[in-house]
Amino acid sequence: MNAHGRPLKVALLGCGNVGSEVYRLIGDQAADLAARVGAPVEVAGVAVRRPGRARDVTVDPGLITTDAAGLVGRDDIDIVVEVIGGIEPARSLLLTALGAGKAVVTANKALLAEDGMTLHDAARAAGADLYYEASVAGAIPLLRPLRESLAGDAVHRVLGIVNGTTNYILDQMDPSGAGFADALEEAQALGYAEADPTADVEGVGAADVHREGITGVTPADIASARTLGHVVKLLAICERGDGGVSVRVHPAMIPRAHPLAGVREAYNAVFVEAESAGRLMFYGAGAGGVPTASAVLGDIVAVARNRLAGTRGPDATPYADLPALPMGQALTRYHISLDVADKPGVLARVAEAVARHDVSIKAVRQEGRGDDAQLVIVTHVARDAALAACVSDLGAMDVVRAVASVMRVEGESDE
Amino acid sequence: MNAHGRPLKVALLGCGNVGSEVYRLIGDQAADLAARVGAPVEVAGVAVRRPGRARDVTVDPGLITTDAAGLVGRDDIDIVVEVIGGIEPARSLLLTALGAGKAVVTANKALLAEDGMTLHDAARAAGADLYYEASVAGAIPLLRPLRESLAGDAVHRVLGIVNGTTNYILDQMDPSGAGFADALEEAQALGYAEADPTADVEGVGAADVHREGITGVTPADIASARTLGHVVKLLAICERGDGGVSVRVHPAMIPRAHPLAGVREAYNAVFVEAESAGRLMFYGAGAGGVPTASAVLGDIVAVARNRLAGTRGPDATPYADLPALPMGQALTRYHISLDVADKPGVLARVAEAVARHDVSIKAVRQEGRGDDAQLVIVTHVARDAALAACVSDLGAMDVVRAVASVMRVEGESDE
Repeated sequence: MNAHGRPLKVALLGCGNVGSEVYRLIGDQAADLAARVGAPVEVAGVAVRRPGRARDVTVDPGLITTDAAGLVGRDDIDIVVEVIGGIEPARSLLLTALGAGKAVVTANKALLAEDGMTLHDAARAAGADLYYEASVAGAIPLLRPLRESLAGDAVHRVLGIVNGTTNYILDQMDPSGAGFADALEEAQALGYAEADPTADVEGVGAADVHREGITGVTPADIASARTLGHVVKLLAICERGDGGVSVRVHPAMIPRAHPLAGVREAYNAVFVEAESAGRLMFYGAGAGGVPTASAVLGDIVAVARNRLAGTRGPDATPYADLPALPMGQALTRYHISLDVADKPGVLARVAEAVARHDVSIKAVRQEGRGDDAQLVIVTHVARDAALAACVSDLGAMDVVRAVASVMRVEGESDE
Repeated sequence: MNAHGRPLKVALLGCGNVGSEVYRLIGDQAADLAARVGAPVEVAGVAVRRPGRARDVTVDPGLITTDAAGLVGRDDIDIVVEVIGGIEPARSLLLTALGAGKAVVTANKALLAEDGMTLHDAARAAGADLYYEASVAGAIPLLRPLRESLAGDAVHRVLGIVNGTTNYILDQMDPSGAGFADALEEAQALGYAEADPTADVEGVGAADVHREGITGVTPADIASARTLGHVVKLLAICERGDGGVSVRVHPAMIPRAHPLAGVREAYNAVFVEAESAGRLMFYGAGAGGVPTASAVLGDIVAVARNRLAGTRGPDATPYADLPALPMGQALTRYHISLDVADKPGVLARVAEAVARHDVSIKAVRQEGRGDDAQLVIVTHVARDAALAACVSDLGAMDVVRAVASVMRVEGESDE
């Protein structure tokens, strides 16, 4: 345990977008931080790859090193802050830090997704803190409420809009009727999307989960959602099911009155359904150097306080031990739009085909268009495998010219 | 410090709506709580006024007592949970508990508003924990994020929808054009409002702040807001100004694209603008026994963990020491609707009167209606005192038949 008043020393690994802002905040808010923590917080070293690079902040040259491993290994370091990103060398550096009993704060989403359990195990074994609020939904305080405020509750389901670029694109597509390509171009012009948009828009980032991106979302899907009183969002979903957890990322229609429907532009939000607390939502900036640095600072204050008190924060919830359920077992509902022949008996044949899969229909709407008609079906909740098989059968029917659009529906209150 | 494994003992003061749910949760989730805290958490006594009263939960009769002071004074009690409500005897009991170094968890909004500083001082002097997440916006995890996740940030402004009843009424008035009396009747029928609605709808609850309720909000105000692309919400606002903090509660028009505009029915939400984190929002159930009990449980876990570790949580932010600014110094903007004579030169005379108060006009809209016309003015940001004086002058002009509606506008991004 530190004697009260001895400065807490931070090793900063990385000094890019987020790192320079963390460095600046620790300097600018030194007096405030010391008051909140109970001791001064100082940056004792900054590990970078290219010492000569221009940065957004003036770093004391005596602090800069290219030897990240040497910095992490120093006996005087209390807290290691990692904002390098990527898997290696971040993982090795953090495992070394935790093994030596140092507290770790990281903003590294990719590393947590890839190997979070290894880091957690190392932290638990060493009795060290591992905080990573900034790695999930940027500046939105989410992990601390889930871990601590809901510590006496049971979380059933989490629905998240956690990709600002895709949300910006879908938001642009909604009121204007713009197609995906136009909206993407605009998002790129505004700096929200990388020039190669695949990683952003395909929803990659978390390993081992079923994921679909938004490249297949058409103006027709969005118009169809609007007719239902819904909007289309790319959702990351985690929900407890029979004997496991269903984790998936896909576009979905949600009711316009749902709080997630109001998440505009590049903002992120996470909607939580808990046994006692009911419906909660956490909204904010999901990315950006300054908001992310704010989340890193909050974690630094927490681990610094723990260190002064000779304690550590709570572990992650035991849900992480539950097995991931296959996508086919997820409970969801489908919105299916079919181009059909406009003649008597079509609806009856389609309804019969749906019923064969034990799927029940919540609503159906048919619109004639000369020779063809469009038939829109919204199902009740069923296993994803049954719904997918049902769509496949519908597509093979002679009265069905084409399956125009298939999208899951989430966030309905009658589920 | 407790030896690891010795049960942590809770004195529960009050066993009504919230208290019986807290009692039930501690029993039902005993194993989970013990795992999260690191030691069992047990209810060691339940203080009630009427031992024979029917409750929602079966309480072990051996735990029930009418001697709350005796229960709080017991040496074996670690944590005092207060869900009685009201000022006395709650205040005296909690000051006794804190004075004896016991941790306190309370859901008592009225007591915190009336005498929060005294409780904070007592907690600090004794080195004891004082947690009250459940007292602010019910189940929404708000205080912990503000105190901890944003501990490295500076909060500029907080806008809250913290009264479920008024939000329900305004939400009903919005799409349907219903008047206040109709919407209130419906809210009462659904159990959202007390039979005497004054306390709910007039926004009482926090002492020493400027407050206006929603009884004066008319369907015309709401229609006017809709024309602007806005909705009307009752907001609790806290913002840092020159040399102090402006704290106020009043109805305001906010843009329909603002995240608070999507808060429907009886839900609550708190919108935070911070220096680095940017715009954040926390949404959830603001009241109800079960959601409030969930927040109490989260606090019990936190203080129990602190107690095992021999430490205590962070104090409230030092903002509480800043003086409250008078309402006249608040910076806001007004939406003013005037019934005027429909003749040339009226707009010029009105504009001139506004300019005399150093208020600038952002937008103006005039609609003729036969002999009369309606003139709607939206101002730029100015001191509330200047805006109020401006409205008073406008009302005295001969060309102004009546001031039909005055409402503040909040949440615009160009402020």
